[in-house]
Amino acid sequence: MGAVMHTMNWRLSPEQILYIMNHAEDDVVFINSDFLPILEEIWDKLTTVKKIVLLTDEDTKPETKLKIDIEYEEMLEEASPTYDFPDLDENTKATIFYTTATTGPPKGVYFSHRQLVLHTMDIALMAGSYESPARFRSKDVYMPLTPMFHVHAWGMPYIATLLGVKQVYPGKYEPDVLLKLILDEKVTFSHCVPTILHMLVTSPVAKEVDLSNWKVVVGGGALPKGVAKAAMDLGIEVLVGFGMSETCPVVTIANLKEHMLDWDDEKKVDTLIKTGLPVPLAEVKIEDPQGNELPHDGKSTGELAMRVPWLTNGYFKDPEKTKELWRDGWLHGGDVAYIDEEGYVQITDRMKDVIKSGGEWISSLELEDLTSQHEAVSEAAAIGVSDEKWGERPMMVVILKPEFKDKVSGDDLKQFLIKFADEGRMPKYGVPDRYEFVDEIPKTSVSKINKVELRKLYV
Amino acid sequence: MGAVMHTMNWRLSPEQILYIMNHAEDDVVFINSDFLPILEEIWDKLTTVKKIVLLTDEDTKPETKLKIDIEYEEMLEEASPTYDFPDLDENTKATIFYTTATTGPPKGVYFSHRQLVLHTMDIALMAGSYESPARFRSKDVYMPLTPMFHVHAWGMPYIATLLGVKQVYPGKYEPDVLLKLILDEKVTFSHCVPTILHMLVTSPVAKEVDLSNWKVVVGGGALPKGVAKAAMDLGIEVLVGFGMSETCPVVTIANLKEHMLDWDDEKKVDTLIKTGLPVPLAEVKIEDPQGNELPHDGKSTGELAMRVPWLTNGYFKDPEKTKELWRDGWLHGGDVAYIDEEGYVQITDRMKDVIKSGGEWISSLELEDLTSQHEAVSEAAAIGVSDEKWGERPMMVVILKPEFKDKVSGDDLKQFLIKFADEGRMPKYGVPDRYEFVDEIPKTSVSKINKVELRKLYV
Repeated sequence: MGAVMHTMNWRLSPEQILYIMNHAEDDVVFINSDFLPILEEIWDKLTTVKKIVLLTDEDTKPETKLKIDIEYEEMLEEASPTYDFPDLDENTKATIFYTTATTGPPKGVYFSHRQLVLHTMDIALMAGSYESPARFRSKDVYMPLTPMFHVHAWGMPYIATLLGVKQVYPGKYEPDVLLKLILDEKVTFSHCVPTILHMLVTSPVAKEVDLSNWKVVVGGGALPKGVAKAAMDLGIEVLVGFGMSETCPVVTIANLKEHMLDWDDEKKVDTLIKTGLPVPLAEVKIEDPQGNELPHDGKSTGELAMRVPWLTNGYFKDPEKTKELWRDGWLHGGDVAYIDEEGYVQITDRMKDVIKSGGEWISSLELEDLTSQHEAVSEAAAIGVSDEKWGERPMMVVILKPEFKDKVSGDDLKQFLIKFADEGRMPKYGVPDRYEFVDEIPKTSVSKINKVELRKLYV
Repeated sequence: MGAVMHTMNWRLSPEQILYIMNHAEDDVVFINSDFLPILEEIWDKLTTVKKIVLLTDEDTKPETKLKIDIEYEEMLEEASPTYDFPDLDENTKATIFYTTATTGPPKGVYFSHRQLVLHTMDIALMAGSYESPARFRSKDVYMPLTPMFHVHAWGMPYIATLLGVKQVYPGKYEPDVLLKLILDEKVTFSHCVPTILHMLVTSPVAKEVDLSNWKVVVGGGALPKGVAKAAMDLGIEVLVGFGMSETCPVVTIANLKEHMLDWDDEKKVDTLIKTGLPVPLAEVKIEDPQGNELPHDGKSTGELAMRVPWLTNGYFKDPEKTKELWRDGWLHGGDVAYIDEEGYVQITDRMKDVIKSGGEWISSLELEDLTSQHEAVSEAAAIGVSDEKWGERPMMVVILKPEFKDKVSGDDLKQFLIKFADEGRMPKYGVPDRYEFVDEIPKTSVSKINKVELRKLYV
């Protein structure tokens, strides 16, 4: 109909929400009654909103100082059952949403009808055509475990609608409720961040139920091998997908190739937790700092660059940041990666988090992954701290499991990492000298480690 | 690389081939040594061809008066293994080929890279996502049974390549050879015209072998129920697809809906032999002579009009015929059809073959189908002959099976059809008065009944 759908992350601060709504020039707000307090708080400063449509399951209207124009279900009842859709150009904007950075104001990314259609078709054909853990077909039952505001819920509700499958929307994410829904509604296909999968597979209920018909695409962060294995041990088919707000989002899926389908789980899991293979129509490459393409040898590490028909054309009303994003006709999303001989991408770090020590790049994510494999470690964060001689040196910020508190030293962890270096699994110069034990690690609104905050504490 | 691939129907007359090659402005000819005599015959009159690339499996060069520039395999050996593809606009022409009409010169239809990509993605996702007889996935083995020059071999080789499946190209179509290939190469997915399927299922060998892993999409003409049932009785999964040269080609597939999958074969077959459901992104409607859209009631019959992203933009260098093809922004392919409540299209005739009697339309295809159900009939053609009172009246031209020759009369057939009219399966005014028995019915180069010729014989 020509409107642009703007989904909103309600977990942001009211100030951020106010900034975003004014920047996006929202004119109609669809709001669940749960969120009215947020809107009330910022209402007087909203500059473009003309109408409010309320969504509620209650029979009585909620008390609010806001002028509600109409309730959603009432609106549907009043409306004509048919609608003469206008012929819009395929490049007409269809959606917009904002991505919050750890620095600077939120940035708006937008996508056209053409992009949503191509993304939907492409991911559907990839998920339908191959005998891989990512299968998603007409007989599946779909339940998203990522919020709708999180990059089109990864585009999956569009695919589910195209396939005509049953769709289950779970409300709040309580492990027991989710597991019950999976069983009762016979859910076969979901997607979530690693944290949610971890929460589900470690729930005591998980071991008592049959999850062997459940397939899960995990994205939004690296999937630890331990979590993937725990899921596979429960019979769950699991694999990683990669994308970002700027990419609609799906760019790669860690689908297995035909010749890998017969591998045993132990061998499969290493491929399934990779960042993944580019989906059909997606082109990716890695570049050295001079912009030269690096070989696909599983070692050469550089900045990831992408060309896919559904990448955002830019940041809304921000030509400067758009120019940084699109360099030489390729989208640079700020990730550091290598590509192996089979074509699988492996992201090793964020450009801004990679630790530059003596001219070499040390992956903070790799350090976190290896440190987490120590039995005493509950959570680990690696950052670079400035060093006169090396420019930067890595340091670890670690939360120990309660039972190991005060029983494990920094030197213990260092010795643990030195063993990996001896085995050639990480460079020797990458072993940190400094280890800090803490009770909490600062997080962003989407539950990632907030390294900007962390660096402020230790630099 | 910017070249336009022009596939050629070698069964056409040398005069037609000459006309087509000059009209298309071909500049490089790739030719198998079998077809050199055709090229030799027209060579002196070709106005644009600059180079000949020969394809041959023989070790010795064939004798020819033509100047061969290079042999294909030699060309590959000499060439660089890498090629820097230029960035072409997605609307660049990628393919062209000619469709022969029963009247007038052949007409060129052309398709862009964008159209081939969308067609490939769309049909792949349709064939991958649903639990229907049209399944075509990465574990399939593909063998086309339509020529490559027949509308991109229905676009299927592109899908097979996208899926990475094994592809078997059978050469000449001998039933025993084809059946042997299906078994030896474990072919699971093919497509063909009704005649080829009929030839295969009636081959004595067919009953002795296991064809239960074979799926076949049938197009290029109506699939008689008897042939479909005979195939299903052999365990073959069969269904109809529809398209034409102007449409890339696939527009509809007679896929079963989820709720039909449990039907028994007897009930399924009536849906599987329909023209089909529009594939994703395809829009179809039927129009009365004034261009008004007719309802989807399974009865209202009108001209079929289509809007699909991969319809030809027009006839090459023929603005007049292009204008006729594209009326009011919809492609009118000259078919008469109805659409039922489930959305399935059923083509009942060609606009030019439909028999207009007393203001009513009588389907020549329906008459042929019903007449063919008589045990004595080997082949039947229906045409309209001019009539002073009714404008036109239907007549049947019939080939009897050898064993029934001279044993069945026109009145026998008329009584047979009156029974269908009594049952309400065809209108009473549709029963022909005139029946002619012949030994041969004229055919076009693509083995369809040549009604233009037939009408000349009897009008």
